[in-house]
Amino acid sequence: MGKVRFSISASIDGYIAGPDPSLEHPLGVGGEQLHEWALALEAWRRPHGLEGGEVNESTPVMEATQANVGAYLMGRNMFGGGPGEWGDDPWNGWWGDDPPFHAPVFVVTHHAREPLELQDTTFRFVTDGAKSALERARAAAGGRDILISGGASVVGQCLDAGLVDEFTLSIAPVLLGGGTPLFADRSATERLEQIGVISAPGVAHVTYRVAR
Amino acid sequence: MGKVRFSISASIDGYIAGPDPSLEHPLGVGGEQLHEWALALEAWRRPHGLEGGEVNESTPVMEATQANVGAYLMGRNMFGGGPGEWGDDPWNGWWGDDPPFHAPVFVVTHHAREPLELQDTTFRFVTDGAKSALERARAAAGGRDILISGGASVVGQCLDAGLVDEFTLSIAPVLLGGGTPLFADRSATERLEQIGVISAPGVAHVTYRVAR
Repeated sequence: MGKVRFSISASIDGYIAGPDPSLEHPLGVGGEQLHEWALALEAWRRPHGLEGGEVNESTPVMEATQANVGAYLMGRNMFGGGPGEWGDDPWNGWWGDDPPFHAPVFVVTHHAREPLELQDTTFRFVTDGAKSALERARAAAGGRDILISGGASVVGQCLDAGLVDEFTLSIAPVLLGGGTPLFADRSATERLEQIGVISAPGVAHVTYRVAR
Repeated sequence: MGKVRFSISASIDGYIAGPDPSLEHPLGVGGEQLHEWALALEAWRRPHGLEGGEVNESTPVMEATQANVGAYLMGRNMFGGGPGEWGDDPWNGWWGDDPPFHAPVFVVTHHAREPLELQDTTFRFVTDGAKSALERARAAAGGRDILISGGASVVGQCLDAGLVDEFTLSIAPVLLGGGTPLFADRSATERLEQIGVISAPGVAHVTYRVAR
């Protein structure tokens, strides 16, 4: 059976987006600095249709994140758009006509919606919680892994329900001083096993296994 | 001129002590897990008068933290005791008769008190803020480094005042879900330079340089 895992970029002070998100700063003020290490990589640019980019110590980390994924799980904000945009001509999210997933994506939301089929990615919308969405992702994943793409709420729900097997924090060298905290919705004390630490340009990748 | 630096153990979710501190759990529930990597080391045990202990990838990290320190800075809670205990027979803090500092220690506090001399460590109490304490520590350090021992408030005051040159986060593999956050008192967005990442048993050490 595949693993349930997530891989997320956070600031030193634990935020996955900066304060005061806006159209100008969709990731909050300073939030784009969390992803600079990734956006510089050839391994990120190629699947997003961009040329060039670096190969460095982060490359195998990103490749491992994307390998063997049978289905994706994400929250409503990660998919994109507000509920008001889900009318007769619902928005397709951040991802354009050819999203980089190439696998079934399950979106946890309070708002029911028909599946959205785009090239070889289908988004399905699940209204009865992260655990149910994960069960459906598991059934669709064909024994491969399930990657939780975020955001913090879905990650927290899955962690608290004991559904996560492994995760990687990619810690960017920035103090944001505010924004969306990754772990704010949790309250349990839980010991993990540190299974990998990678030093790369402008980021530290630390991978943990959740003991069961 | 020496560096101003700190080195602190935090949970994955950014706490330097667990929730609900008590006499039974002085570091909060689960907080002792933050320091297991350190307490297991021969490099920690020897200066604290204990035998045995491990030598591993954390050993040079701890040795570098303790090397070339000319003075220490710490907050009131880090020194120990409550103000009520500072009467005719004030408590000597957590540290016993022979504290492991062997250098001048400056304690930031609201409560004035005469210097406390113990073997070769002298504690001095500074009531006009972290910046003033740091200036006094600088004068006492003889060109060597100043190590900020914590807690979060003093660290945050020094960071916000632009007084820190470098710091190491030793990230322990535990989610505490609550407690004392390291960076809660800050609000500025600040880019840092990642200058070292060390993988060690049960801990990831990441060192940052603060750009000036």
